[in-house]
Amino acid sequence: MKKLGIAMIGYGGIGRVHAMAYKAIPFHYGLPADSFRIVGVATTRPETAQKAAAEIGCEVWTSDYRELLARSDVDLIDCCTPNYNHEEIIVAAAEAGKHIYCEKPLAMNVAEGQRMVAAVEKAGVKTQLTFNFRFFPAMIRARQLIEAGFLGRVFSFRGRYYRASYISPQKPLSWRLSKEVSGGGALFDLGSHVLDLIYYLLGDFSAVQATMETLIKERPLAAGSTETGRVDVDDLALLHVRLKDQTLGLIEASRMGTGATNDLQIEIFGEQGALRFSLEDPSWLQVYDVRDPEKPLGGMRGFKRLETVQHYEGQKAPDWTMTPTFTRAHSECQYQFLKAVRDDLPSPPTLAHGLHIQEAMAAAERSAAEGRWVKLEEVR
Amino acid sequence: MKKLGIAMIGYGGIGRVHAMAYKAIPFHYGLPADSFRIVGVATTRPETAQKAAAEIGCEVWTSDYRELLARSDVDLIDCCTPNYNHEEIIVAAAEAGKHIYCEKPLAMNVAEGQRMVAAVEKAGVKTQLTFNFRFFPAMIRARQLIEAGFLGRVFSFRGRYYRASYISPQKPLSWRLSKEVSGGGALFDLGSHVLDLIYYLLGDFSAVQATMETLIKERPLAAGSTETGRVDVDDLALLHVRLKDQTLGLIEASRMGTGATNDLQIEIFGEQGALRFSLEDPSWLQVYDVRDPEKPLGGMRGFKRLETVQHYEGQKAPDWTMTPTFTRAHSECQYQFLKAVRDDLPSPPTLAHGLHIQEAMAAAERSAAEGRWVKLEEVR
Amino acid sequence: MKKLGIAMIGYGGIGRVHAMAYKAIPFHYGLPADSFRIVGVATTRPETAQKAAAEIGCEVWTSDYRELLARSDVDLIDCCTPNYNHEEIIVAAAEAGKHIYCEKPLAMNVAEGQRMVAAVEKAGVKTQLTFNFRFFPAMIRARQLIEAGFLGRVFSFRGRYYRASYISPQKPLSWRLSKEVSGGGALFDLGSHVLDLIYYLLGDFSAVQATMETLIKERPLAAGSTETGRVDVDDLALLHVRLKDQTLGLIEASRMGTGATNDLQIEIFGEQGALRFSLEDPSWLQVYDVRDPEKPLGGMRGFKRLETVQHYEGQKAPDWTMTPTFTRAHSECQYQFLKAVRDDLPSPPTLAHGLHIQEAMAAAERSAAEGRWVKLEEVR
Amino acid sequence: MKKLGIAMIGYGGIGRVHAMAYKAIPFHYGLPADSFRIVGVATTRPETAQKAAAEIGCEVWTSDYRELLARSDVDLIDCCTPNYNHEEIIVAAAEAGKHIYCEKPLAMNVAEGQRMVAAVEKAGVKTQLTFNFRFFPAMIRARQLIEAGFLGRVFSFRGRYYRASYISPQKPLSWRLSKEVSGGGALFDLGSHVLDLIYYLLGDFSAVQATMETLIKERPLAAGSTETGRVDVDDLALLHVRLKDQTLGLIEASRMGTGATNDLQIEIFGEQGALRFSLEDPSWLQVYDVRDPEKPLGGMRGFKRLETVQHYEGQKAPDWTMTPTFTRAHSECQYQFLKAVRDDLPSPPTLAHGLHIQEAMAAAERSAAEGRWVKLEEVR
Repeated sequence: MKKLGIAMIGYGGIGRVHAMAYKAIPFHYGLPADSFRIVGVATTRPETAQKAAAEIGCEVWTSDYRELLARSDVDLIDCCTPNYNHEEIIVAAAEAGKHIYCEKPLAMNVAEGQRMVAAVEKAGVKTQLTFNFRFFPAMIRARQLIEAGFLGRVFSFRGRYYRASYISPQKPLSWRLSKEVSGGGALFDLGSHVLDLIYYLLGDFSAVQATMETLIKERPLAAGSTETGRVDVDDLALLHVRLKDQTLGLIEASRMGTGATNDLQIEIFGEQGALRFSLEDPSWLQVYDVRDPEKPLGGMRGFKRLETVQHYEGQKAPDWTMTPTFTRAHSECQYQFLKAVRDDLPSPPTLAHGLHIQEAMAAAERSAAEGRWVKLEEVR
Repeated sequence: MKKLGIAMIGYGGIGRVHAMAYKAIPFHYGLPADSFRIVGVATTRPETAQKAAAEIGCEVWTSDYRELLARSDVDLIDCCTPNYNHEEIIVAAAEAGKHIYCEKPLAMNVAEGQRMVAAVEKAGVKTQLTFNFRFFPAMIRARQLIEAGFLGRVFSFRGRYYRASYISPQKPLSWRLSKEVSGGGALFDLGSHVLDLIYYLLGDFSAVQATMETLIKERPLAAGSTETGRVDVDDLALLHVRLKDQTLGLIEASRMGTGATNDLQIEIFGEQGALRFSLEDPSWLQVYDVRDPEKPLGGMRGFKRLETVQHYEGQKAPDWTMTPTFTRAHSECQYQFLKAVRDDLPSPPTLAHGLHIQEAMAAAERSAAEGRWVKLEEVR
Repeated sequence: MKKLGIAMIGYGGIGRVHAMAYKAIPFHYGLPADSFRIVGVATTRPETAQKAAAEIGCEVWTSDYRELLARSDVDLIDCCTPNYNHEEIIVAAAEAGKHIYCEKPLAMNVAEGQRMVAAVEKAGVKTQLTFNFRFFPAMIRARQLIEAGFLGRVFSFRGRYYRASYISPQKPLSWRLSKEVSGGGALFDLGSHVLDLIYYLLGDFSAVQATMETLIKERPLAAGSTETGRVDVDDLALLHVRLKDQTLGLIEASRMGTGATNDLQIEIFGEQGALRFSLEDPSWLQVYDVRDPEKPLGGMRGFKRLETVQHYEGQKAPDWTMTPTFTRAHSECQYQFLKAVRDDLPSPPTLAHGLHIQEAMAAAERSAAEGRWVKLEEVR
Repeated sequence: MKKLGIAMIGYGGIGRVHAMAYKAIPFHYGLPADSFRIVGVATTRPETAQKAAAEIGCEVWTSDYRELLARSDVDLIDCCTPNYNHEEIIVAAAEAGKHIYCEKPLAMNVAEGQRMVAAVEKAGVKTQLTFNFRFFPAMIRARQLIEAGFLGRVFSFRGRYYRASYISPQKPLSWRLSKEVSGGGALFDLGSHVLDLIYYLLGDFSAVQATMETLIKERPLAAGSTETGRVDVDDLALLHVRLKDQTLGLIEASRMGTGATNDLQIEIFGEQGALRFSLEDPSWLQVYDVRDPEKPLGGMRGFKRLETVQHYEGQKAPDWTMTPTFTRAHSECQYQFLKAVRDDLPSPPTLAHGLHIQEAMAAAERSAAEGRWVKLEEVR
């Protein structure tokens, strides 16, 4: 691997996870530590940028990300900013000829996403959107099984992502609760992950019927404040979804899922088999095989929890019999992107794939507003 | 308890379960065996009726249920026939002054249900619809907790019932697949249970948005036959449901739930707590209490599986530390109904309660047909 | 089935369970209700016997069980008394030519057991000891798999039965805490079940090394009493066990298993596979098959929970997709015994099988006293 | 934190995990990357040392660890070599005045361990043995609860660690199967972890009764070889253990646990509560509180799974709502040791604590050989 230089743009909670995940790559894959490096980091304010650089151990920090784009030792950017400035940064990076690794969701809306995809396609750079849940071993294994015909005809599917992050009415307003900065609420933040997993496993969407709700409509402007402001994004989104091949399913996202830590679940029911996955039990993919004999006394029928525990292709020893995690999956998707850049390989999910998710979310919003099924083609 | 006489009308699979459950009542509650008895049984054909009587150990059998209605030693009927003849039987029984215990769902449609409710109200007899899942200890406990304010404001709910009973395309047509006999498919058969549980726990429904599907549209007329016939009921029903108090939730029913044995699940999310129940793990009610302290290191927060294991009010020893079951819950609802008859007590869920479920199902069907939210008042 | 007459001797908690289980047999197996009947019941005191007869619905009751033995319409006895009078009753019943169904454990000690086995063998009557956990579908399935070679060479096994029944120091003395009446404590009451399951699944025992403990040594004589008496039986028993074929394993029994409801677990590890069962999740037998492929990404390796849910040979519909229970398993072992009596079939576990368990318990007691491994042949 | 220099001695699988875990520390705790650094790495052969240095990103590598001990920029060593050369390295490091972080188990035997502890105490250096399972949040939380009196009087405990690593008879000999290099088998490798957890949670051991077994006694010398050699360490160890306060419990270790990935479980039963932990479900500590009300219908009694998910004191955001892992716990114990070195704090588990575990293992070995209970004082 040539010595790839990475510029980190944005360094909040998820930026820190990305940086930590990069540092683990050499150990997971047996690579020299200098195969790639984080060249510098940009955040909005100089002081946070400096602190980030110290934590990362890189020398360059700035409050102007364009400085990083201007450097010849930067091969790719990793964009971890809030959604509202994705477009500006990604378009600028593309024009600077940098490869692009970007946190989800792609954009504030479909129009923005279309402009971003046009820019990166014009520039011919590699892109990847960080849908890291695709990179859990259980999801990789699920796709292998589906491609091998394990399920037969798919009857229906279910996907959900519930968190309890906003159940307290005292939790103050933040950028994630403002449509102007985030573009959307539970659907954008959590639902996008589920949409991507279903897209990854089962294919393109064609139409959506959604009900979306803001359960807590007013929140304090700051912790402890008596002044309140309006929440203008959804905290609960319930979708009926139809795939291009007409398969029907259910997708849900909630920030008001009392008791949930990271309750992301996928279930797929097919004529020949079924699959289940739960992020709270991430080491296993549950599979059911209708081809198993039914006799005697139930025969060999039943759900089997496949041992996918950190079985990544080409992985070295560390942790391989231990529970996979969020951070480990980040290392995997970063590694796949670094390889794609180095060896000129496809790098799904690209920004174009992310645009499809953006369209599904736009269709959901219109459906919720109009109380009817909306086709993705209506929002393009 | 005076010696109540029961007439069983219909004796298929569920009739047999009812009969067995009656026999267990004296042991569960320490009653004399002769507190009540099954006087006789009616089925369509004399030979099945005779065989049923032998199994039950009763002397009277007939292919004309009116003979049983005419007997003075029959105090109540237990109706276990297919849905299409509920109306006729229940109206006749009410007119004969018999109390009525009836398998769910109430009727083929709302109009039938309305006539049935009018008849029983006019006759002034006690009625109960067999929604036996209400009588699992975990559900009784859930309602106690909700009434005591455990959940605080309810954010949303989910309920599902998936079975794998029809995943094989070779499974032939039967009365459950014919709208003319059953009135409906997965929604009527399985969804009605979930609707009743949500109704029991959270209250009245106001509107429904549904998507319903028949995944396997043609089936053999008989096992192994090459002749096929049309399935005209749903095997998958996905509902968004709004309660009268505006709470939003999700209800699903599927006969195509590959790998499911009896996958009925309930989840309720509230500001102060959450509840979960799964019929595949029926001994426990999962509860989460937001009032638990959060510190240090997560404090005492987390889901607790309450030991509801067969804790019935007034129950004697047998099985009380063992898993509750379908049959045990049937004994409990029968016992409650026998007590209601004897002591002139309320007997929920009555046929009138069942009519509310019927309306929700009718609203779902219209919604699925018209692609829009439908209010229950539109189908009355 | 000829009309078999049953005499119940003893009617405490477990007697009630037996009676209830008999009543369910016609429905589970599609038999005429009069294939067998409970003729009468004997308990120590006339008033409890009369109440028992009312509950059961039989006409004969007595405080002298010999009256029942004298009846020609009694074909078999069902002995549910405390352990200390098993010998007397079983020997008398054998001499009266009655078949014998008897609650576990067999006897107070090996010598008693030997006399009982000699008596029934001399009389040539059928016998069965009520080790009802053998009759859970998961255990029947486990044995089928083991006999078919599923496990290959067995490496080791584990079995435990923990209950929380005696964790309160305020719980008063009772017959189960007195060696004179019960013969033993946790090992006799709970451990005997685990020993029987291992015996059923893996074969004869050869030697035991045990540590046994009485954690609460003094208890109130009655609820609330300040007078206390000595507990002289174990409430915790830890055994290392060697089978005749030299396989090593672990068996534990505790009445001080805080939080346990019915925590009986079995695990068996073999070169080709593994099995797991938990009574708190009784519908499934967990199996692991080493012959499953290991590639790619873990391949198809993993524990599968087999759907044994009430899959009994020859069973009719009721409850078959629902959780199996204690009571259901009692119906199954009663049914097998009734069939054995009617058709002159083997009826394991017989009293002779129960004697083997008695020997293993005696070896454990001597081992605990002497701090060394004890062979079963030393206690014969 | 002053810029601490670390020398890594040994770099096999576990060395790689340690190195990766160090790199994550700045991100977990918000520290500058240069608070500490890995100065160099020593392995037996120059080529593996060079490759390790490239992976770690350090400049110094050597096949002579004494070169690292001689460096003034090395403050502490991290010893990841096989057990047989722990003594030599640790004694040399102590004499060089280096602080010592060492992989478990401490030594080949008690005598070695005593010499090592004497050396580090004489040198006055900080030491920590890497029992990283102590540093899972659930275990930290368990100790907090126990110290706060949650359990009341402890009745008994159970701990086990089963892996399936050696179930194939074709798996060839390796250093872990040779007593001369490893010191012991399943007990040393896996059992030591369980012993340490019980020691951490419940206190000192006083005596052990053990049965130990080598299930596969001959293995190929190399993969595919027909020549075989003798396995002279245990692959299954079953212990009855008595604590100093007389509490009795069970500890097991097996490398022949078919189907187990990392099946480490702890259960503790007390008069007022119970605790359970399973490494295959590491986010939660299961707790049962006897003080919870028992009425109505079971009241609030039941096991609660506490959300310990990566709740570390002083931790920054990343991963805190995600599953904790092996690597994360390594970062935590390393961080605690670095803080102890910097701020002169206690650093449990020290090598002296490790010596107690070594004594318990020695007592187990003698017990297994002599078929009797052995006190720890007999092996000192």
